[in-house]
Amino acid sequence: MGLGGLLVGLFLVSAVLVGTSVRHGVPRAEPEPEPELELAEWDPASGAFPEDSLWPLPQSLRTSPRQLQLAPDRFQIVHGAGSSAGPACALLQDAFRRYYEYMFGYARWLQRGRKGLAAKPELAQLQVVISSPEPGCNGYPQLASSEAYRLTITEPVAVLKADEVWGALRGLETFSQLVHEDDYGSFLVNASEIYDFPRFAHRGILLDTSRHYLPLKSILTNLDAMAFNKFNVLHWHVVDDQSFPYQSIYFPELSNKGAYSYNHIYTPTDVHLVIEYARLRGIRVIPEFDTPGHTQSWGQGQKDLLTPCYSGKQPSGSFGPVNPILNTTYDFMTKFFKEISSVFPDDYIHLGGDEVSFACWKSNPEVKEFMKKQGFGIDYAKLESYYIQKILDIVSSYNKGYVVWQEVFDNKAQLKPDTVIEVWMGNNYVQELSSVTGAGFTAILAAPWYLDYISYGQDWKKYYSVEPLDFPGSEKQKKLVIGGEACLWGEFVDATNLTPRLWPRASAVGERLWSSRNVTDLNDAYKRLSNHRCRMLSRGIAAEPVFVGYCAHEARGR
Amino acid sequence: MGLGGLLVGLFLVSAVLVGTSVRHGVPRAEPEPEPELELAEWDPASGAFPEDSLWPLPQSLRTSPRQLQLAPDRFQIVHGAGSSAGPACALLQDAFRRYYEYMFGYARWLQRGRKGLAAKPELAQLQVVISSPEPGCNGYPQLASSEAYRLTITEPVAVLKADEVWGALRGLETFSQLVHEDDYGSFLVNASEIYDFPRFAHRGILLDTSRHYLPLKSILTNLDAMAFNKFNVLHWHVVDDQSFPYQSIYFPELSNKGAYSYNHIYTPTDVHLVIEYARLRGIRVIPEFDTPGHTQSWGQGQKDLLTPCYSGKQPSGSFGPVNPILNTTYDFMTKFFKEISSVFPDDYIHLGGDEVSFACWKSNPEVKEFMKKQGFGIDYAKLESYYIQKILDIVSSYNKGYVVWQEVFDNKAQLKPDTVIEVWMGNNYVQELSSVTGAGFTAILAAPWYLDYISYGQDWKKYYSVEPLDFPGSEKQKKLVIGGEACLWGEFVDATNLTPRLWPRASAVGERLWSSRNVTDLNDAYKRLSNHRCRMLSRGIAAEPVFVGYCAHEARGR
Repeated sequence: MGLGGLLVGLFLVSAVLVGTSVRHGVPRAEPEPEPELELAEWDPASGAFPEDSLWPLPQSLRTSPRQLQLAPDRFQIVHGAGSSAGPACALLQDAFRRYYEYMFGYARWLQRGRKGLAAKPELAQLQVVISSPEPGCNGYPQLASSEAYRLTITEPVAVLKADEVWGALRGLETFSQLVHEDDYGSFLVNASEIYDFPRFAHRGILLDTSRHYLPLKSILTNLDAMAFNKFNVLHWHVVDDQSFPYQSIYFPELSNKGAYSYNHIYTPTDVHLVIEYARLRGIRVIPEFDTPGHTQSWGQGQKDLLTPCYSGKQPSGSFGPVNPILNTTYDFMTKFFKEISSVFPDDYIHLGGDEVSFACWKSNPEVKEFMKKQGFGIDYAKLESYYIQKILDIVSSYNKGYVVWQEVFDNKAQLKPDTVIEVWMGNNYVQELSSVTGAGFTAILAAPWYLDYISYGQDWKKYYSVEPLDFPGSEKQKKLVIGGEACLWGEFVDATNLTPRLWPRASAVGERLWSSRNVTDLNDAYKRLSNHRCRMLSRGIAAEPVFVGYCAHEARGR
Repeated sequence: MGLGGLLVGLFLVSAVLVGTSVRHGVPRAEPEPEPELELAEWDPASGAFPEDSLWPLPQSLRTSPRQLQLAPDRFQIVHGAGSSAGPACALLQDAFRRYYEYMFGYARWLQRGRKGLAAKPELAQLQVVISSPEPGCNGYPQLASSEAYRLTITEPVAVLKADEVWGALRGLETFSQLVHEDDYGSFLVNASEIYDFPRFAHRGILLDTSRHYLPLKSILTNLDAMAFNKFNVLHWHVVDDQSFPYQSIYFPELSNKGAYSYNHIYTPTDVHLVIEYARLRGIRVIPEFDTPGHTQSWGQGQKDLLTPCYSGKQPSGSFGPVNPILNTTYDFMTKFFKEISSVFPDDYIHLGGDEVSFACWKSNPEVKEFMKKQGFGIDYAKLESYYIQKILDIVSSYNKGYVVWQEVFDNKAQLKPDTVIEVWMGNNYVQELSSVTGAGFTAILAAPWYLDYISYGQDWKKYYSVEPLDFPGSEKQKKLVIGGEACLWGEFVDATNLTPRLWPRASAVGERLWSSRNVTDLNDAYKRLSNHRCRMLSRGIAAEPVFVGYCAHEARGR
């Protein structure tokens, strides 16, 4: 046995290598397994454990103490031979530049022309190889996109292989997390081999731009942070009772009247920018237009859309949920969702359906008459289902899938089998997951990850310790849980506190949804998360501290 | 009765006019009462209630619907006739410029040369008149400083009268809060008369720069916010177990070894800047150097300062509180506090004294021997008191007063009668206030205002609803409560989240400590606090939202 083979025993194997990944019926083409690295030279002075900085932890990581040096003015990220993507792939070109900046920052300028110390072997390139004939450069990430990648770091070049660009983006993030600066300002990376893929396909962050308006820059910054944590869905809860900031093309009065002010809207340009910024980071944007409840702001700009509530025999002047008994409602929704389906490229739209109060419907004599005619008796959940089914039909006709909050399932609406149910109620989500998947529906878990509920101390541990598949059900049922979302509802959140409130608490959810089920060690996670939050700081994300301590590069005061 | 007299009935009297203020035995010279304003002209279109924007609410406020217009390119804040301060008073000159900026911001440039609409009478000047022969321009605010002021706003000039500059600063803040912009960009102020003074003399914010380092800019921004809320004490918990960022002149090794890094220190220049920035805003800086516990970081740079702990008969290698049995300890403390007394101009130093664990002392055979010799038996509280009393003597010898945490009192240290006791333990602070003041000591209340304990929702109401004098005790005892502090301990706080976590939650404490005891209406406070937080935003303080809603000028995203 040569020295290389001997040292394999020193590798720090953090997770079991998993050979294939078949998820949700979508077989993922995996890159060919590589021959094992030949690694030698133990540098006892190195000290650093490179995996201390990884977040979320890759599915399989083998790293050696052997360190390679990167020279910022020479190191390059390039398209590798045989890649189906090349310089015409703007998405990757942009990602290469971005990750170069994350790794070297301003240091590259300081080091320009400086001769590297020749003590360590040099890593000259990271070659990125996309294997699919359709790399995805100009497309949008989807639920079924492959995010798997294989990263082999050894001199003189490291190779990052992925089926599609989405996997390459995840691999670039991992590579950048492995590069570190030593005490002398040298950039080092340990020879490593990583094979990685997400445990769950849907890993979302919910932002709420209705309770408080979030400036575009806050949303973009959050997309950066999401990429650093390998999240891949922005669930944009764009409108709600309080305000309607989405500027509709067909119905401009919705935001003219329903936004907080003319200063608190998202123009079509803003929306496109969010979608494109997200796409470049492998993040889907699923807009939520929640009806029939949570629609007070819609009523400002769209006459007769909401149900007039009655006080005795007179209209009280206040309004309830969307009026489900008028044809004009469905005419409006048909046109409105036509626009939404066209503006948002994702395959899915979130249609809400939560917390519908029946009081107003019950008070309205015309609604009562309609109930009678339809044979609904006094079961207003039937009326709600009637409405929802019509909306689902409308959205289906535009070839969109849809996500709904759990009440739509609970109230026994007739749902198409491909409906995705988002489980949000905290009291009994384990049972709900069981019921939803037992009925054959796909589920997203949000309930234990309502990050707007703040509390003192390291509450990330609570989020981290959730096991999404720990519910009674068959293997088939477990496969129906496609992921989860960390939700930051906006009652107490705006641009002043969004970032530090969300990060790194959401990072805990990020690792839970990406890494292997057995990655549960809180002490190990604490160490990595602390480093990860310092890295986020250095990349301009004002992530709050995990606990006492410091970062080499602190956030600037403000 | 003329029209003016008739309209007095329309005045919105928000608080009872209190004629005199004698607090803590320090009689405050009050400006002469002014004759009642003659106010006429009811403008039914004005709509705005100017006191909706005031925070904290003045002791006495009379405001009329009559609006005066301010022209940014003409309006001036000037020294009034008979003022003992003039253009040589740099503190006021700086404040005039600052408040001009807060009121008009960039708008003054837009309006340059624009002719004012002549529809409303113009307010041309705010004249500031300091009546004391010693206005305080070059001094430092003190516990006994007068912060009272009287503000009379009527055309063509408004007059702000105060005994000392400290009252003028508070009055400028109030005046700036009354100036508002209408829908057309005009700046308006309602004719008003305000007489105001603080209910409590000590209104503090505790910042902790040991658990996390706070960049200088964060501290300065916080001082701005404090001034907007009429706080007047920065309790700077500068060092603790975790790090020693204070760069000592005599003992530079303390921060060289005890700070998180060379990048995480406050140089003498930094410290002076904080003190001066605070002074210009009428804010005292009370540094806390907490001993004998909470001193792990001190031990890094000062040999033999801490007590070696024993494991059986051997030193365990770890260290406990400051070693109270060595003469070298007191030699060090004498020199150290000589420096502190000279660097920090305030009359008070906070000496800590909280949470001293006796376990290490108990383990140390030399300490046990010392206990025996001193006749302390096994009562280690006596040893703690022995230590504290020596420290108090040292600090007294430099003509400083001192504040200590409540344990020093609880452990029955012999205290000089002028010791200030800070009550922090949440479990029974009402009884503690009773005991401390019953024993004749002066008290500061912090216990109900530990703002590092976060929770979901509008917790400001909890802080707001505290009544500091609601404890069993005589009038004389009540007078011994000189104020309170909102404490933001730093375990989970750094530059990323300091501002939104502290503001506007601390504003609730600010009003409780400034305004009249009967200012307790939560609905009224909600309205004013929401406006106040928007104003803080427009002045560059990233104060988080009180609840759903928006501000005309939102925080920039980041």
